[in-house]
Amino acid sequence: MMAAQQRIVIIGGGFGGLHAATSLRNVEAQVTLIDRRNFHLFQPLLYQVATGALSPANIAAPLRDILKRQRNTEVLLGEVVDFDVEKREVVLRDGRIPYDTLILSAGVRHHYFGNDQWEQHAPGLKTVEDATEMRRRILLAFEAAERETDPVEIRKWLTFVVVGGGPTGVELAGAVGEIAHHTLKHNFRRIDPATAKVILLEGTDRVLPPYPPHLSAQASKSLTKMGVTVRTNAVVTDIQADTVTIRVGEQTEQIDARTILWGAGVQGSPLGRKLAEATGAEVDRAGRIIVQPDLSLPNHPEILVIGDLAHYAHQTGKPLPGVAQVAMQQGDYAARRIAARLKGETLPPFHYKDLGNMATIGRAAAVADLGKLQFSGFIGWFIWLFIHLLYIVQYQSRLLVLIQWAWNYFTRNRAARLITGEHLLPPIEGHKA
Amino acid sequence: MMAAQQRIVIIGGGFGGLHAATSLRNVEAQVTLIDRRNFHLFQPLLYQVATGALSPANIAAPLRDILKRQRNTEVLLGEVVDFDVEKREVVLRDGRIPYDTLILSAGVRHHYFGNDQWEQHAPGLKTVEDATEMRRRILLAFEAAERETDPVEIRKWLTFVVVGGGPTGVELAGAVGEIAHHTLKHNFRRIDPATAKVILLEGTDRVLPPYPPHLSAQASKSLTKMGVTVRTNAVVTDIQADTVTIRVGEQTEQIDARTILWGAGVQGSPLGRKLAEATGAEVDRAGRIIVQPDLSLPNHPEILVIGDLAHYAHQTGKPLPGVAQVAMQQGDYAARRIAARLKGETLPPFHYKDLGNMATIGRAAAVADLGKLQFSGFIGWFIWLFIHLLYIVQYQSRLLVLIQWAWNYFTRNRAARLITGEHLLPPIEGHKA
Repeated sequence: MMAAQQRIVIIGGGFGGLHAATSLRNVEAQVTLIDRRNFHLFQPLLYQVATGALSPANIAAPLRDILKRQRNTEVLLGEVVDFDVEKREVVLRDGRIPYDTLILSAGVRHHYFGNDQWEQHAPGLKTVEDATEMRRRILLAFEAAERETDPVEIRKWLTFVVVGGGPTGVELAGAVGEIAHHTLKHNFRRIDPATAKVILLEGTDRVLPPYPPHLSAQASKSLTKMGVTVRTNAVVTDIQADTVTIRVGEQTEQIDARTILWGAGVQGSPLGRKLAEATGAEVDRAGRIIVQPDLSLPNHPEILVIGDLAHYAHQTGKPLPGVAQVAMQQGDYAARRIAARLKGETLPPFHYKDLGNMATIGRAAAVADLGKLQFSGFIGWFIWLFIHLLYIVQYQSRLLVLIQWAWNYFTRNRAARLITGEHLLPPIEGHKA
Repeated sequence: MMAAQQRIVIIGGGFGGLHAATSLRNVEAQVTLIDRRNFHLFQPLLYQVATGALSPANIAAPLRDILKRQRNTEVLLGEVVDFDVEKREVVLRDGRIPYDTLILSAGVRHHYFGNDQWEQHAPGLKTVEDATEMRRRILLAFEAAERETDPVEIRKWLTFVVVGGGPTGVELAGAVGEIAHHTLKHNFRRIDPATAKVILLEGTDRVLPPYPPHLSAQASKSLTKMGVTVRTNAVVTDIQADTVTIRVGEQTEQIDARTILWGAGVQGSPLGRKLAEATGAEVDRAGRIIVQPDLSLPNHPEILVIGDLAHYAHQTGKPLPGVAQVAMQQGDYAARRIAARLKGETLPPFHYKDLGNMATIGRAAAVADLGKLQFSGFIGWFIWLFIHLLYIVQYQSRLLVLIQWAWNYFTRNRAARLITGEHLLPPIEGHKA
């Protein structure tokens, strides 16, 4: 008698889930990739959508299209709400999907350290909608300043605060600085966008804390050149619609700003907690599931968690960072681990091969920490560009992104400066046309 | 004593308003261009955004950017709500702008012939948001069909009705046919997208009624080749969420379809009626203002109406069509007419120079009616491509559009297939995952 075919369900079409799916292409199994969205998003470039340099479609590739030739795999647009680990079923909002093996790669959302009310004033950056919302706020701030007559209000509209000195915060702050100083030159008649203040707030003593100190210093220098005011040891204690309160040492300070962007904390998808509850697995403070050396859960060898949602500390004692590289390698490992298990074999524990870290600050400025090799400035930037282009899934997108980058480089223009969505006009109380 | 500088206010940054503004560049005046949006939209290509071939930013150019070197002109993001023609002021939602001369170029919206309740079921295509909404509906229909188990429901999801056989309807129907038959090939496992039915409904006896009959016949033939069912003499009498009722001759018929796209009527912006009330000008049934031979309003030589919102019948007895060409020529004329009036001179009446009409049906198929020269098929398509590329405002966009068209031509792929917005998942009642 033939055994029924193994059903592998993957939740999440990000770097982890997609790599798991493609690495399963030759495994005799029935693979189902479930995502709420119909596309894979190249998140490392999302800040470029938020700052008008690229269009959403340039960094998104339809999941069905990527996997269309992979006959053992189907894509399901669906929203997972829970798990029935006894019956081995994934519970969707409107149905159930049985599995023999489950890979959860549901990622993280931004997170306000218990201050969810900050979100409305300081949106984060995880989805395409987040990015177009940020773009809308940044561009509308200049429009509002142009229409305003009260100098105090103009100053508020022309002050941008970015919270968090990690890669996202650094990238956003650099891009907003460039918009103010270059992209919008000659665009306004009443205000000078170059007088805008861009303030980057970091709670620790330097930006890009996981990088070697001299690269942090380089990044800080590049940011300053781009017109960004870097404030370290600045802990955000409150955010309102037009003020950020910070604590610097013993001092409390208020920054008046109409545009506040969040690049600070992230927290695991709520699905992490659901799965932990169902399996008895442990969750860390950031909502990530603590996984075994082979990425599975205790007593549940049939369930693997990968990517940003996995807390994997077996290698270095502290959890691996939430970066694309880790997720991709874990996706590949998960696929190999499943294939081995089907054959009754075992694999050595997952081992992360750190190829280095990179963060860009803006035009011709980036830092790259490739272990022994460390670059900053133009060379760092060039490496950053090259690697990012290489990892974009679709060839057409690579070409489109390359052209837009080249164009932006030479003209400092950002063509995707659309204000779209419900609220097309800036808030108007007290404004004069 | 020096006269105060002439204040010219232009409402609307479409083809008409933008051409008026740029043609005023050397006029000694203070020009203000007011638009609700921060960008000029190349509307003739909007259907390509609605069908996933281009990104919104590819066909949108920031108004400030276009006009940044034009020192006599400022751009104001604002919503006009009324006119005070006695005081010569434009009334914004939040302020007033005085003018000496006013150019209204506020365009048209789609229009449901008194059946506004149809809009929710059959969205039209005038804004970027309209386009992404249409794209969402088209793509979600295939997703829903893939998840559905009831064959009757699957059939409804795989039936697309396009109402209106004018250029927009023809272009939309052709593109949806191409998506079903080519773009989505191999993308699904349970349904075959090529079994989708695309039905184009036209009330008169042929598609593209303003074109010569043999070009209409060519268009019809091309549509059929693309898998579109063309139904002429089919008058829509009702639209519900999943049915369109039509009358064909004496017969009434119901078409079950979950996706209904509106490419039929348009009606002048409500600002047209407001201005007509304020000035005593006449408005036609479509809400367009009937203008004088010099595009001004009776007894108001200081107010001009141009573009789709103007009803100009002095040349041929019937109003000029609502196309970009008319709007651009009227924008240029309006600028010359204002410049002449400032010098105390008069101009001969506006004369529309018809350079021809073009409509595309899809890949390598279009019709071009250039008066004596008439083309269809590949040559018509090539001319269409060339002219449209030429009129896109920004160089970068031209290049990006060209690349995407070339890519689409060879691969039949459409990269901008993102489902975005609030409702990410298809309606689910009765659906099984």
